[in-house]
Amino acid sequence: MINPPQRISFVTLGVSDLTASKKFYTEKFGWHPLENDSEGIVFFQMNGLILSLFPDSELAADAGIINNGAGFKRFTLAINCYSEQEVNDIFSSLKEKGVEIVKPPEKAFWGGYSGYVKDNDNNLWEFAYNPFIALDNSGNITSPGG
Amino acid sequence: MINPPQRISFVTLGVSDLTASKKFYTEKFGWHPLENDSEGIVFFQMNGLILSLFPDSELAADAGIINNGAGFKRFTLAINCYSEQEVNDIFSSLKEKGVEIVKPPEKAFWGGYSGYVKDNDNNLWEFAYNPFIALDNSGNITSPGG
Repeated sequence: MINPPQRISFVTLGVSDLTASKKFYTEKFGWHPLENDSEGIVFFQMNGLILSLFPDSELAADAGIINNGAGFKRFTLAINCYSEQEVNDIFSSLKEKGVEIVKPPEKAFWGGYSGYVKDNDNNLWEFAYNPFIALDNSGNITSPGG
Repeated sequence: MINPPQRISFVTLGVSDLTASKKFYTEKFGWHPLENDSEGIVFFQMNGLILSLFPDSELAADAGIINNGAGFKRFTLAINCYSEQEVNDIFSSLKEKGVEIVKPPEKAFWGGYSGYVKDNDNNLWEFAYNPFIALDNSGNITSPGG
């Protein structure tokens, strides 16, 4: 039995208007987004984790659920792992414990490997292996993209 | 103008059944909660931040809003500051920029000082000074309660 590592790698806000939300965080909060290749998502490096802004419909689709405002809370928490195997081991273990699998782990369009489970209260947790993001020995994201 | 520090100190899930949620995270995820004096809230030390479980009605009340399932998303993000003054300065600055103040900073029942703003999408951000939680030089929570 492998337990999920006790950390948070991403907090993702499912936003209704990505341009407006990016404007809010850059202009009102004065935060600096990370450079990235996609226009469709915005990242902010926080302390050992990343805050991302992503359109709510796409976030729902990524988890494979319906964005009807009822069940989907429009945010997700993610735990990055060190390998695809670790992701698989965590899913096997959670499944054995009766945790509801929302989306079994699979190759993701962005080059990684990820799946979703949910807690008893419909909060979504993603477990992901991202070959492009290094985790330090403490599990912190310190140098995204590098 | 002081910008909010670019970090997350707490991710708080507003849960419908605290006992069930604590059971989920301790039994299914196998996580170890922090010892604390209150039966009414559960904390998990993550990488430089804390995940807390708190009844949704109380979380809504803490932010001074109505838990009607419509506007309240049942989670909040918090940024801990180094002093009450820093919290005040951040609020003044955000107010000047037209950010909606949900609850102006005030002494909190738990001995700290905190207030809430919201982003353009109704996501709640709390800014808090907590004299009982040390932040290291990077702004990480590394030794809660100590």
